[in-house]
Amino acid sequence: MDQMNLIVIGGVAAGASFAARARRLDESARITIVERGPDVSFANCGLPYHIGGEIPTRDALAVQTPESLKGLLNLDVRTESEVTRIDRANKRVEFRDLKTGQSQSLAYDKLMLSPGASPLRPNLPGIDDSRIYTLRNLQDMDRIVAATETGMRAVVIGAGFIGLEMTEQLQRKGLSVQLVELQQQVIPPLDAPMAALLESELRQHGVSLHLGDGVERFTGDESHLRCHLNSGKVLEADLVILSIGVKPDSELAKNAGLLLGPRGHIVVDEFQRTSDPDIYAAGDAVETLDRVLGSKTVVAMGGPANRQGRVAADHVFMGDRARPYPGSVGTGIVRAFDAVAGITGWSEKRLQAAAIAYETVTVNDNHHASYYPGAKPITLKILWSPESGRLLGAQATGSEGIDKRLDVLSTAIVAGMSVEDLCHLELAYAPPFGSAKDVINLAGFAACNRRDGLVNHVSKLPDDPAVQVVDVRGKPLAEAFPAPVKTINIPFPTLRANLDKIDRSRPVVTLCAFGKMSYFAARVLAQNGFSVSSFSGGLKANIDPRTPAKLPNS
Amino acid sequence: MDQMNLIVIGGVAAGASFAARARRLDESARITIVERGPDVSFANCGLPYHIGGEIPTRDALAVQTPESLKGLLNLDVRTESEVTRIDRANKRVEFRDLKTGQSQSLAYDKLMLSPGASPLRPNLPGIDDSRIYTLRNLQDMDRIVAATETGMRAVVIGAGFIGLEMTEQLQRKGLSVQLVELQQQVIPPLDAPMAALLESELRQHGVSLHLGDGVERFTGDESHLRCHLNSGKVLEADLVILSIGVKPDSELAKNAGLLLGPRGHIVVDEFQRTSDPDIYAAGDAVETLDRVLGSKTVVAMGGPANRQGRVAADHVFMGDRARPYPGSVGTGIVRAFDAVAGITGWSEKRLQAAAIAYETVTVNDNHHASYYPGAKPITLKILWSPESGRLLGAQATGSEGIDKRLDVLSTAIVAGMSVEDLCHLELAYAPPFGSAKDVINLAGFAACNRRDGLVNHVSKLPDDPAVQVVDVRGKPLAEAFPAPVKTINIPFPTLRANLDKIDRSRPVVTLCAFGKMSYFAARVLAQNGFSVSSFSGGLKANIDPRTPAKLPNS
Repeated sequence: MDQMNLIVIGGVAAGASFAARARRLDESARITIVERGPDVSFANCGLPYHIGGEIPTRDALAVQTPESLKGLLNLDVRTESEVTRIDRANKRVEFRDLKTGQSQSLAYDKLMLSPGASPLRPNLPGIDDSRIYTLRNLQDMDRIVAATETGMRAVVIGAGFIGLEMTEQLQRKGLSVQLVELQQQVIPPLDAPMAALLESELRQHGVSLHLGDGVERFTGDESHLRCHLNSGKVLEADLVILSIGVKPDSELAKNAGLLLGPRGHIVVDEFQRTSDPDIYAAGDAVETLDRVLGSKTVVAMGGPANRQGRVAADHVFMGDRARPYPGSVGTGIVRAFDAVAGITGWSEKRLQAAAIAYETVTVNDNHHASYYPGAKPITLKILWSPESGRLLGAQATGSEGIDKRLDVLSTAIVAGMSVEDLCHLELAYAPPFGSAKDVINLAGFAACNRRDGLVNHVSKLPDDPAVQVVDVRGKPLAEAFPAPVKTINIPFPTLRANLDKIDRSRPVVTLCAFGKMSYFAARVLAQNGFSVSSFSGGLKANIDPRTPAKLPNS
Repeated sequence: MDQMNLIVIGGVAAGASFAARARRLDESARITIVERGPDVSFANCGLPYHIGGEIPTRDALAVQTPESLKGLLNLDVRTESEVTRIDRANKRVEFRDLKTGQSQSLAYDKLMLSPGASPLRPNLPGIDDSRIYTLRNLQDMDRIVAATETGMRAVVIGAGFIGLEMTEQLQRKGLSVQLVELQQQVIPPLDAPMAALLESELRQHGVSLHLGDGVERFTGDESHLRCHLNSGKVLEADLVILSIGVKPDSELAKNAGLLLGPRGHIVVDEFQRTSDPDIYAAGDAVETLDRVLGSKTVVAMGGPANRQGRVAADHVFMGDRARPYPGSVGTGIVRAFDAVAGITGWSEKRLQAAAIAYETVTVNDNHHASYYPGAKPITLKILWSPESGRLLGAQATGSEGIDKRLDVLSTAIVAGMSVEDLCHLELAYAPPFGSAKDVINLAGFAACNRRDGLVNHVSKLPDDPAVQVVDVRGKPLAEAFPAPVKTINIPFPTLRANLDKIDRSRPVVTLCAFGKMSYFAARVLAQNGFSVSSFSGGLKANIDPRTPAKLPNS
């Protein structure tokens, strides 16, 4: 083949990565990007942050232009051009210039589909009101920015990653924001307790949360819009952001007869090839492999999209010598003001729904040496396979160092590490950066203690009044931040001398703020013949994410 | 055995961890800590930060007291007690109370040696001057704090981790600091270019660096001390900090006939057992296994010490069911004002000295999305085995996110990951936290490009005038931050149109600020028939750590 003809449909994350890598591999190829929108290769993950003003200049997001891509990569970029048909038999793409209305067609040797995914717009009464926005591109962003210049009341529907970013940014900008979410928590991929800090932080910043509630219909007049919720509540708004999820833009692929998955995603192999070996696909519109358990999954994230695009280009030029795309773990992180939470791998609820056996512990510690000023607490939950001890997932929440722990644990998951391996990870330690025993090491220790039968854990406080709950915190702390059940308060340093205060004939649950002292106490009691469990993760991980481990100046 | 008698010699990191874990495993054991100093379980890594005032209260470092350890762990702590002899035949430890002078002895079933390491004090003329300090414990710290209350001029000798922390903290406190180091760089475990940012930062903050120089002798009079360097320089000082390294406190072990390594460290097995199966050892005084290559090594760090103590306690009570200590990677990090640098695994110089084959690349990128405000550059170097591609080591420098990259790469090293695996690590990405392609992914890409023969790298600019150096930066940047060799400036976007400006008959090295555009250019030139190499890591990683990738407002 003298000169390869490559056509890329959709020029944002996956498509732009594909084109850039293809050019690196072949100076002579003709590479054409056909993009429906007016922009290519823009920073779509940054859109909410410009709306809130954190990214002050719009230009920062318009990473490349057709002209800059011509200079850098010798690409032929056709923006505002809509592909109308993929003619697989003749290997041609037909598209229409949206500015002129003219149609044309181009031949391809290899075709890359990176159409992305569209925000869902459910068919509810009133949904067509022009004050109901979704956010996908710079034009959507511009419309929302314009709406925030007059509107002061926003309703965000859907508390996933984008919904939470929009909520934070709109509130930051001075709007009054109400957030509606069908689940009983924000960020539904997280297990509920790991979302509690985000919820607390949103409320502290004045956001109204409507959890476990959904929109039934919209009504409105000239002055404002009303969101009627399933609960009967009516929220008044000047603008509404719909962020309830996305659907793959796979219509072209479907019309071309390419194989789609059960939810409409394009099916690809490990080199991102569709069911037509001359057509590749990557990004939010494709199915991928779950890297933890090997099942099919969908991960609509910028990182995977970029790397899939690269893999596809490698395969075009290197064939099966290319390195396959290994699948995705599903690592996600979100910030709401000073609170951060994230996940990598599988959650407890997802494992439960799939009936996959797991064990879990939750631990709390500071993000760096506690004695060094500025230490902030982290709550870390890990999940593993009971047989092998292999790590299946992790979630973390706090304000500092969350991304670091997720990244280490994502790496540990794809390496097939067990919870035992976490005990001996050697993480960078100097007082401003970490601890001699990092919270990840502690999670490994806690998991091994459980596997070794050193401790029984409960993750709920007992309802049964026959169970004695022993609160081993100091008395002032136990009084200032009481547990939500009846307890016997025996501060840990006095426990060995006060065993007679606990009824040996009845089961015991030990409780503290962070789950560490309660473990110590469980060991003391177990070795003294008590039937005892420790409340894993303590009050902080399960009841109140703001519970301190000690009182100020104590 | 009814009641186990455990004696711990040295109650700081490893010893305190051993005792705490032992108590968790056995409520009935008699556990005695014998500690020469007046304190147990203090935060030794925090000492420099109290001297500089960053940790304002001394109490923050005195983590535990004999009384608190009695309450928490039912330990019998004997401070200011010096062990004089280990009687292995009768399994007894003899020690002397330094306050009363009285001697006594205690029987042990199992003994833990965690004596730590002492700062080196070389036998130089004048070394006994009382104004020459070393830093090991709270009393040393108090003496230095007192000295800084009158003295204004400090000389720090030895620019390792502790030396650099002391330099930063003394300068921070307002002293004028001169730093002397025998090597031509600070932090000798780093490859020299990776220390350049630290050196630049120290100089910007007014520290005088004397690299490649050492102390010959000290002289002094009442008013001040003089450090006479090998170079002939004489530095005047009110106080001198000696931080040239440590030696293991293994005298007791030696006298007891335990097996020592070539540099006097206690030899232990994977459960931290010495050559006497009833005696364990852990911490700075022991040899350990290098986790990368399996050789013997010494890692005097708080993290390994703590985890070794725990392993030893597990073995006492669980026997060979305990999990072995897998060895250490050697992860270290240090901060100097706003600059941070660190290492995990093997450096280039160490691989060279051991004649171990390796390849390496250095890449630069920002610590989070470049378009999100506050992005700070990171320089990341990775090293791998040419045959397998297995990661052998990594170094990073910058100001933000250095600890995160080291932690991920330390995890990747112990998992036996290859550079190919780095391409597809799925790290947490939202604009405030990372990039769609993290600098770790980029390092993986660069390494694979090299392994695939897509690019040749050079890490030094050519001396040979026959080699053409093509600077592909924009002209204003190339003029503002010129390369230190003669170059042809052809901005990358104009390269394809200007190939005739380069002599095809002579070799070419492409150059830019960060090493990215020079790689792009090398691909263009290689495919156009030029013999070309890219200057890996660019000017930033090799020549000037402050070189920007673009000019402000460009």
